[in-house]
Amino acid sequence: MPQAAPVTTTLNDVDLAAVGGLIEKVKAEPGVAATTWAAEVAWAGGFRSEAKVRTFAPARSDEPAQLGGTDTGSNPVEQVLGALGNCLAVGYAANATAAGIEIRSLRIEVSGNIDLHAFLGLRPGHAGFANVSAKVHLDTDASPDAVQALHETVTSTSPVGHTLAHPVAVSVELA
Amino acid sequence: MPQAAPVTTTLNDVDLAAVGGLIEKVKAEPGVAATTWAAEVAWAGGFRSEAKVRTFAPARSDEPAQLGGTDTGSNPVEQVLGALGNCLAVGYAANATAAGIEIRSLRIEVSGNIDLHAFLGLRPGHAGFANVSAKVHLDTDASPDAVQALHETVTSTSPVGHTLAHPVAVSVELA
Repeated sequence: MPQAAPVTTTLNDVDLAAVGGLIEKVKAEPGVAATTWAAEVAWAGGFRSEAKVRTFAPARSDEPAQLGGTDTGSNPVEQVLGALGNCLAVGYAANATAAGIEIRSLRIEVSGNIDLHAFLGLRPGHAGFANVSAKVHLDTDASPDAVQALHETVTSTSPVGHTLAHPVAVSVELA
Repeated sequence: MPQAAPVTTTLNDVDLAAVGGLIEKVKAEPGVAATTWAAEVAWAGGFRSEAKVRTFAPARSDEPAQLGGTDTGSNPVEQVLGALGNCLAVGYAANATAAGIEIRSLRIEVSGNIDLHAFLGLRPGHAGFANVSAKVHLDTDASPDAVQALHETVTSTSPVGHTLAHPVAVSVELA
């Protein structure tokens, strides 16, 4: 479908009316935009745990054997990379649809580097990702300019992308 | 088990020898600490996607109906919160075991606030979490001082905690 095609709510299987409705609601009542999200994690022995979100089945987490785990699931830092890719996918789907761009396929490779010295207690300082990169494979008929504009909109509005790129106030307390 | 109990590799079901071995390897050859992690996301229509890590089954992602999704899985920002809880669980398990502290149970509630204005394109700026909080429910016989020391070690060495708290260089490129 060329990019100039009329936007319908079925393009990319995105419910554009729902998104538009939310935007109108927030414009009318800005407080609606204040959202709280949650997850609950239960330790399962060793480096295994499960994260539960709302009513979904708990997702398993572990560490690879090299890090002392039993390798029964992705590890927490891999989950962060997956979350970034998923967030970007939502961004491309939403904004492509709003722009009348059909996505034929979309695949996102995400990777990141961590120096383990801080995690292992061998050096103080930043224990997290030094950097994170996402490579976006977007198949569409849209013009290069339209794709570039889409890309800029997505990266400038990505909740997970911004959570990583900006310092976030993190508080961890013993209950 | 009191905190002064001898450390064994079965305490908390943590393979302390593997973690110790990694620390020795990194001390001998610091380059071993340079690690790269990855995930690959495939868009599945609408706001649905799947994140694949190594050989594990792809994990489903979606958005709730209020955000225009079909609510078939946790959303990306919830996944970030789950990853933080999982990461903290690894940190408590590893460092409690190293300190000879038995964990009877561990549960971590994580929540965070996002103002959707930026995500919805209604305002420029930070689209991610304004803040993230974790409440740690740790059941153990260890003394309050030992638990506090454990807590400080965990929060000062958490890869996901630090990834959120520090600005990370994020690069998103069209392939």
